[in-house]
Amino acid sequence: MNLIDTARKGKTNKLIRCVSRAEGISINNLKADISSGYSVIPKNKNRDIEKPCGIGRNLSTKVNVNIGTSPDSEDIKTELKKLKESVKLGADTVMDLSVGKNVRNTRRIILERCQVPLGTVPIYEAAVKSTDDIRGINERDMMKVLLEQAEDGVDFFTIHAGVTKESVKYIAKKKRVIDIVSRGGAILYKWIMLNNRENPFYRHFDEVLDLARTYDITLSLGDGMRPGAIADATDQAQIAELKILGKLQQRALKKGVQTMIEGPGHVPIDQIEKNVRLEKSICHGSPFYVLGPLVTDVAPGYDHITSAIGGALAGSYGADFLCYVTPSEHLRLPTVEDVREGLIASKIAAHAADISKGRKESISRDMAISRARSKRDWPKQFALSIDPEKPKQYRKSSVPKDVDVCTMCGNYCPIKLSEREKGA
Amino acid sequence: MNLIDTARKGKTNKLIRCVSRAEGISINNLKADISSGYSVIPKNKNRDIEKPCGIGRNLSTKVNVNIGTSPDSEDIKTELKKLKESVKLGADTVMDLSVGKNVRNTRRIILERCQVPLGTVPIYEAAVKSTDDIRGINERDMMKVLLEQAEDGVDFFTIHAGVTKESVKYIAKKKRVIDIVSRGGAILYKWIMLNNRENPFYRHFDEVLDLARTYDITLSLGDGMRPGAIADATDQAQIAELKILGKLQQRALKKGVQTMIEGPGHVPIDQIEKNVRLEKSICHGSPFYVLGPLVTDVAPGYDHITSAIGGALAGSYGADFLCYVTPSEHLRLPTVEDVREGLIASKIAAHAADISKGRKESISRDMAISRARSKRDWPKQFALSIDPEKPKQYRKSSVPKDVDVCTMCGNYCPIKLSEREKGA
Repeated sequence: MNLIDTARKGKTNKLIRCVSRAEGISINNLKADISSGYSVIPKNKNRDIEKPCGIGRNLSTKVNVNIGTSPDSEDIKTELKKLKESVKLGADTVMDLSVGKNVRNTRRIILERCQVPLGTVPIYEAAVKSTDDIRGINERDMMKVLLEQAEDGVDFFTIHAGVTKESVKYIAKKKRVIDIVSRGGAILYKWIMLNNRENPFYRHFDEVLDLARTYDITLSLGDGMRPGAIADATDQAQIAELKILGKLQQRALKKGVQTMIEGPGHVPIDQIEKNVRLEKSICHGSPFYVLGPLVTDVAPGYDHITSAIGGALAGSYGADFLCYVTPSEHLRLPTVEDVREGLIASKIAAHAADISKGRKESISRDMAISRARSKRDWPKQFALSIDPEKPKQYRKSSVPKDVDVCTMCGNYCPIKLSEREKGA
Repeated sequence: MNLIDTARKGKTNKLIRCVSRAEGISINNLKADISSGYSVIPKNKNRDIEKPCGIGRNLSTKVNVNIGTSPDSEDIKTELKKLKESVKLGADTVMDLSVGKNVRNTRRIILERCQVPLGTVPIYEAAVKSTDDIRGINERDMMKVLLEQAEDGVDFFTIHAGVTKESVKYIAKKKRVIDIVSRGGAILYKWIMLNNRENPFYRHFDEVLDLARTYDITLSLGDGMRPGAIADATDQAQIAELKILGKLQQRALKKGVQTMIEGPGHVPIDQIEKNVRLEKSICHGSPFYVLGPLVTDVAPGYDHITSAIGGALAGSYGADFLCYVTPSEHLRLPTVEDVREGLIASKIAAHAADISKGRKESISRDMAISRARSKRDWPKQFALSIDPEKPKQYRKSSVPKDVDVCTMCGNYCPIKLSEREKGA
């Protein structure tokens, strides 16, 4: 029995209990949210996950880390370092987006070591395996890849089933500054255009659902036409695709397949609330998984910051799941250090969103670190920090004469100056 | 004749022309906004400023960089490096917050080299010069410092005149997690409590105004009781002080003294809009100068990111002026590299806010970089970046086989895949 069926039948399993405990949500509420498609817990029936995670309504905002090889860099060791570092720093899920040669082998190695839910974008593997470039990707091979990945234990699939003959018309209108920035979206767009055939994931969506149901894989309906430039945000192409995803989500829900919806991309601050509300209404409250959003295009090298701004805001309006963005976005395959920086920025965004959403556990953590700050209890501040190492190093690098304060203010430390015992 | 008088008499000077041109605002609208106190252009009548800047209504969001020595680090060379780097990277103003021994000398050296408006917090110098600690700071010496700094050419003063016998009562109620985090605020709080006398800047506010008027110094009314913890945001102490500042702003405006209002601090995302609206209504549309705000307390080492989130949001709601925050905040005096990182994060926030405010020039820049991205025109992308150096280095560090793409996607570059010429 898969998870939605379990929840719908009013039964409780280990996974539900575990998430309920971690999130401080009652088992009944969690089951109701899973039954209605408001929340998901991605886990392939073939996998054991040490740190499972729930995503959706009344749950804390989650963060995903992307890793994986590329045609220019096929070093599995580096990717495993990224995986290790990510899980250590608190990534809630990991996606293996490898497009290097040995995709399946890479994935199996990563899956074996991954203690959190692992996602993939199966069309990548189909593209890598195709000897006859994008046009020649065989339709049955796409489905075969799904099955292989399901058997290997992948917990969630990004499926760009909304890139259809209908929705790509808006790209053909040539109104965009950048047509397509989604790798999976571009592969399917090109396939559709060159073959003049419908997207196989859309055409055979029932088959996709049957497979997802069998292995209890969560579908993450990809936004292959997400805006990749501020000027393209919330345009017709994006919304046309979102409407298709909303219909597919209903079909998935009916078949008892857990589903999330992926979202942009590059979005100016004043359109973020609208984007979250549109997803929640068009896609019936399905968990919203956003990439960023990046609130400006002009900061390559710092896109972990542009997307922390957008992610925090999206989260505060109700987005459930943030895909991290690294400082290397738009420039290169990220290094291990980039992964660290991207993940930390995204965790800051998620935490700030959770405070804004009024989550008690998040607010208490801020209270605790601020109490420690007020007492200049440095070790406690470090222990409560999102990254305990960097502040420790910073302080070590710049030792004040009076160890009770820091080198910014020295004896003019406002906290110390205003301490009641001494000040009044 | 000072700037407000000039504007009120319908006259136009070089400064007004220069800002009007830079901002794409008509001279008449700019003069109207200066006359009504909605906008300021800080410049001491004794100073020449190479790159003047306007702050306020209908103007782009500005960014301030704090530099200055501390009792633990009195290396003027480092501070000058910070100054140089800041102006190069596009800081709109600089504040010299030195509390090391030779405050006046340090300031004079910085002033001489500073091509943008320079601000200070004069109470620091009064405290440093006092031989008898905080309690013993002589009231007349406070005023003397103002005069000396005015003569030296300081363009704007932070004056914590809202820390009064009345408003500090809310601190005495002991409800805060952290009482006071403003250095100037804490000095005045302690002075008031130990001497049981009123804040001299408040008591002699007319004298402060006369001096500001004489030298055409812009007042930045400091928020000495800004919240320093998420739990303290928008509390009674903060609002009590803001109300006092609103009254002082009216007195300044009447006397023809340009004024800004300083704001928090640590504020959760869901209270940022409220904070901007409160300032704009209580302080009659006066330019709002925010420190951050930091949207969570738990990220020491990354507070340039927590405040980029808050700053972008505050700016999008109407804050006019962002004080940068460095990764060293709460931990140490920032290094030159910290200053760079803090400034870039703050410039990202200001730019994202300007896009959200609908500023055409900002939107065009994003359009231009995205067009370059769509053509994989790397040099143009770098040239249009907030920091042209870092993305250049990143790309250099990771060379793709096909120089037309990057090592993230290689031949699966979605932009290239979806190019119409090839894809359709």
